[in-house]
Amino acid sequence: DSKLKIFSLNSNKELAEEIAENVGIPLGKSSVTHFSDGEIQINIEESIRGYDVFIVQSTSQPVNENLMELLIMIDAVKRASARTVNVVIPYYGYARQDRKARSREPITAKLVANLLETAGATRVVVLDLHAPQIQGFFDILIDHLVAVPLISEYFLNESGIDLENVIVVSPDHGGVTRARKMADRLKAPIAIIDKRRPRPNVAEVMNIVGNVEGKTAIIIDDIIDTAGTISIAASALIESGAKEVYACCTHPVLSGPAVQRINDSVIKELIITNSIALPEEKNSPKIKQLSVAKLLAETIVRVHEQKSVSSLFD
Amino acid sequence: DSKLKIFSLNSNKELAEEIAENVGIPLGKSSVTHFSDGEIQINIEESIRGYDVFIVQSTSQPVNENLMELLIMIDAVKRASARTVNVVIPYYGYARQDRKARSREPITAKLVANLLETAGATRVVVLDLHAPQIQGFFDILIDHLVAVPLISEYFLNESGIDLENVIVVSPDHGGVTRARKMADRLKAPIAIIDKRRPRPNVAEVMNIVGNVEGKTAIIIDDIIDTAGTISIAASALIESGAKEVYACCTHPVLSGPAVQRINDSVIKELIITNSIALPEEKNSPKIKQLSVAKLLAETIVRVHEQKSVSSLFD
Ligand SMILES: Nc1ncnc2c1ncn2[C@@H]1O[C@H](COP(=O)(O)O)[C@@H](O)[C@H]1O
Ligand SMILES: Nc1ncnc2c1ncn2[C@@H]1O[C@H](COP(=O)(O)O)[C@@H](O)[C@H]1O
Repeated sequence: DSKLKIFSLNSNKELAEEIAENVGIPLGKSSVTHFSDGEIQINIEESIRGYDVFIVQSTSQPVNENLMELLIMIDAVKRASARTVNVVIPYYGYARQDRKARSREPITAKLVANLLETAGATRVVVLDLHAPQIQGFFDILIDHLVAVPLISEYFLNESGIDLENVIVVSPDHGGVTRARKMADRLKAPIAIIDKRRPRPNVAEVMNIVGNVEGKTAIIIDDIIDTAGTISIAASALIESGAKEVYACCTHPVLSGPAVQRINDSVIKELIITNSIALPEEKNSPKIKQLSVAKLLAETIVRVHEQKSVSSLFD
Repeated sequence: DSKLKIFSLNSNKELAEEIAENVGIPLGKSSVTHFSDGEIQINIEESIRGYDVFIVQSTSQPVNENLMELLIMIDAVKRASARTVNVVIPYYGYARQDRKARSREPITAKLVANLLETAGATRVVVLDLHAPQIQGFFDILIDHLVAVPLISEYFLNESGIDLENVIVVSPDHGGVTRARKMADRLKAPIAIIDKRRPRPNVAEVMNIVGNVEGKTAIIIDDIIDTAGTISIAASALIESGAKEVYACCTHPVLSGPAVQRINDSVIKELIITNSIALPEEKNSPKIKQLSVAKLLAETIVRVHEQKSVSSLFD
């Protein structure tokens, strides 16, 4: 018995199942239900005394419900005498509220970090934080994994596109580092979409820095939420002479009109990961989902065996 | 300018309005909305630098949403340089998860106390905690108000019942102290409902300790949730010879079949407070709601003026 247990909460049970399979142990037995008044009731149905416990939960929609499930589970695991309380958060919600952009705004990404620590987490494993600075919001250990290698593998080995003719596109200035990493793996050049608003209350202009003429453009972002920006960016690329446009992201938030917009857009295929579960009704023939289960399973095993995980970071 | 601001969140805006009216200031300007993906967005629309800020929010259903609103608002208020961050929580949710009743259970009432402190609350004002021990879960200042005086006033001055003929009934052993306090105010005797389960998987038996023959029985509880117990208790009182049965509680959780059960029960009238807002669809001619706005307003003013609030505790 290696004293390792993995528990799933409600946000992403399929991913948790797949992680456990990859680790080679069954998921820990627990139930998360609601009392009649909506309060969360958690039962851990097996002993975890002295165990390294890993709780898998994305704080995706419904974010507040999922976050409270996680906090209450951490409390229960801690009080059940686990040796360590590790939380695996494939998608870290509230990451875009990571600074005071205006006066009197909260910094909810920092608040969430503090709440996780207060509840009793001893370590967190996250994937592609919206801003890498969020790592510094934690005083506990944090492992920050990236999905670029996984997504790049797909383009290199499975997509069937002409790799000689690719250009990787960052949809904004904030994403250039990520685009650069993928371009290195694909041995491709990069382009950047330079958005600017000529005057207040005038539509944004998308200017493409780099030559996309005749190329297969691959736009890479961390989060695709309402898919407004990415759809417009894809059109701008085609207008600038790109032959075809693929898009990819780690976190398919896909809220509101997102899937409709993707379907209606010039995007040929959208590659996402399962950091956020894709509900049936959001499925689309254009969407291809890659699994981060192996990456997370390997991280869990290495953390448990007290081995370095740094090779999984790039 | 007395440097006092009161903000409302979404759980109980009417109560917050009424509190502000009683204090004699307008509610602070703020908005709580949601981004497309369900994340909470809070804007505080006026300066609160150097102010004593009071945030009014019950953590009633939807409890996780309401709690996260409160935590994020506390963070925003703290970062906006308020002098003190006071939270007024008329109904403190998760209060029934205040101990490990079984192995590996969370103690969510304690977790919530820690989360409020971590977010930056400097003082909390609560009303009739399910267990008074929850006060000790906080390291920050806590004011614990009670609704017995308000409810007793109603019976003394407005109900029109024959006060010579009243008996106050506690629905369980845990509530005897509360029943005793009300009985003192009404100058009435008390009875206790003694529930026991003769064998496992056999229905509970309700035995009434005290003579209710010919009396007007008033059952008092802190929370009425699904109203199962109180409806059965009322029938048991009538069967034991009570002339009529009133029921009262501080916190009308009233989840699931509660209102239907009250309507179908022998209870003549149910007296509740507005610690939890009563939505239109839960209204009933049998339900009478009393307001705790004056009590909370007086507490806020006294805390702000650094005067004792202890006379409001009994
Ligand atoms: N859940 C959300 N959905 C949309 N916008 C958000 C969300 N959370 C924060 N924001 C806004 O997104 C901006 C930060 O995004 P970014 O510039 O990409 O880091 C800030 O102006 C936030 O107010
Ligand atoms: N929201 C809730 N609804 C119903 N029962 C609850 C709730 N929260 C906790 N409990 C249970 O209520 C019991 C505590 O209630 P009490 O004995 O009245 O203090 C515990 O067994 C809890 O498991």
